[in-house]
Amino acid sequence: MNLLYALDLLGTAAFAASGALVGVRRQMDLFGVLVLGLVTAIGGGTLRDLLLGAIPPFSLQDETYLYISIGVALLTFVGHRRIEELAHPLLYLDAVGLATFVVIGTEKAMAFGSGFLGAVTLGVMTATAGGVLRDVLSNQVPLILQREIYASACFAGAALLYLLKLLHWPRPLAVLLAAALVIGLRLLAIRHNWALPRAGQPESSPQQD
Amino acid sequence: MNLLYALDLLGTAAFAASGALVGVRRQMDLFGVLVLGLVTAIGGGTLRDLLLGAIPPFSLQDETYLYISIGVALLTFVGHRRIEELAHPLLYLDAVGLATFVVIGTEKAMAFGSGFLGAVTLGVMTATAGGVLRDVLSNQVPLILQREIYASACFAGAALLYLLKLLHWPRPLAVLLAAALVIGLRLLAIRHNWALPRAGQPESSPQQD
Amino acid sequence: MNLLYALDLLGTAAFAASGALVGVRRQMDLFGVLVLGLVTAIGGGTLRDLLLGAIPPFSLQDETYLYISIGVALLTFVGHRRIEELAHPLLYLDAVGLATFVVIGTEKAMAFGSGFLGAVTLGVMTATAGGVLRDVLSNQVPLILQREIYASACFAGAALLYLLKLLHWPRPLAVLLAAALVIGLRLLAIRHNWALPRAGQPESSPQQD
Repeated sequence: MNLLYALDLLGTAAFAASGALVGVRRQMDLFGVLVLGLVTAIGGGTLRDLLLGAIPPFSLQDETYLYISIGVALLTFVGHRRIEELAHPLLYLDAVGLATFVVIGTEKAMAFGSGFLGAVTLGVMTATAGGVLRDVLSNQVPLILQREIYASACFAGAALLYLLKLLHWPRPLAVLLAAALVIGLRLLAIRHNWALPRAGQPESSPQQD
Repeated sequence: MNLLYALDLLGTAAFAASGALVGVRRQMDLFGVLVLGLVTAIGGGTLRDLLLGAIPPFSLQDETYLYISIGVALLTFVGHRRIEELAHPLLYLDAVGLATFVVIGTEKAMAFGSGFLGAVTLGVMTATAGGVLRDVLSNQVPLILQREIYASACFAGAALLYLLKLLHWPRPLAVLLAAALVIGLRLLAIRHNWALPRAGQPESSPQQD
Repeated sequence: MNLLYALDLLGTAAFAASGALVGVRRQMDLFGVLVLGLVTAIGGGTLRDLLLGAIPPFSLQDETYLYISIGVALLTFVGHRRIEELAHPLLYLDAVGLATFVVIGTEKAMAFGSGFLGAVTLGVMTATAGGVLRDVLSNQVPLILQREIYASACFAGAALLYLLKLLHWPRPLAVLLAAALVIGLRLLAIRHNWALPRAGQPESSPQQD
């Protein structure tokens, strides 16, 4: 499925750009920007592969991912003003990357024998752990733990994919529906500013510094 | 040794509740609370298994751990007011979990061929790394690095277990004594507010925010 | 190559001392100081081994590293005033450790089949990831992401080593030249206060607290 590989590289580039931008905004130096771009782009899948025992992880087996991540982070460092202007289109690429990472992660976990909750957890982790690492390295509480429905879109897509494959739906259709669900929920969440509930909080909006 | 498995699940539940509570207190959303609960409960053992090469880690091999961690975190999210009231009894469950994790971690490392310092390090890590990850994700200096004798209780138990097994004591007795040592030290530390020394500090009590 | 092993142990000791000092300065308790020393000294190589699938990692296969790291951290805890006075000579030991870690990491990655970018990334990671973990555990933005040319020296050494080995230069010469490049760049950077560029920043000098 070469389309999935192409989308994976596209998502890697989008994630690398968003990670590198965080580094630029936090006034990191060149090395810091490269590290944040790299970690955001390949951190989730690499952690998944470590947990599955798929060693060496995809990111070391096919160095294309390293070249794209570091190359895009370098371009972002040099041309960050132009990239910032692309923030809106980047959101769409980011949603495509998110869906691709969820699909790839969930399928890989299933191929390694994970059950429902294992496959879904690893699918969500593939798409989100890179951003968590980025925020930890930037010394911030990970954004995704605080006020994004980002993870729920991943969860829904991973669960749908697991169920459709369990029911032996044709793989292209299952993948397509799961990916569409992730992208759809993500874009709706952006448009309508959805957020997950917090425990027993009045609807204030805490500021993150 | 089914008792050890039962205690392990009990400890997992206690750790998941304490991790989820931190997420609630830090005003994370539902996803953040689930992640903190999960990471606190299974993070230490998962890291140990990665280091030992016991892949996939226990938490993916037996998804009971995932269901318990996420289930308890979900309950904590919904009923956190009631769980907060249980904070005191939770401390006892937490001590039991701590002892169980130390015993399991130390024994597993020995089974994989670790020597004294390796087995003790992995035993302590099994019981403590989940809490360290929880605090890193909450953007705090890990509590355990600052003012708890928590880790010393783990160290003592792991060292005792290693020595007793080296001397070929019967396994149930060795496990029981090591677990009792961890629980005893932990409860004494709570009651008497023990803390480890700091380097060259007058006995002030720095506040953590 | 027993010299490389001796230098590796020396570098481990230097890194453990610098990590433990951070713990002392952050007023951690004894356990925190030991953890920071250990993580700084063996974190980078352990992460590299996990990614390469070299399991168990070097630090569990040869417990000498654990004994040195924890022993030096303990000495640092007890005698931190004296160690602080050695801060200047420690910088030289640190540079030697840096070079050794880069060489060992790059060679190990090549032995496991990594290509150029993989080998260089793992070489740099071997030397730098321990310090990143130390800073994350201290709840600080990793110093190396912000204003050090530290990582560039590692990158240059790893890239040179890769190229010389590709060209079939004799191994001792290749290793020596790569190590000399790392040490030379590092000491020059200290002397001349070099730093990497930041994206679009005027040449202010942001303070890190």
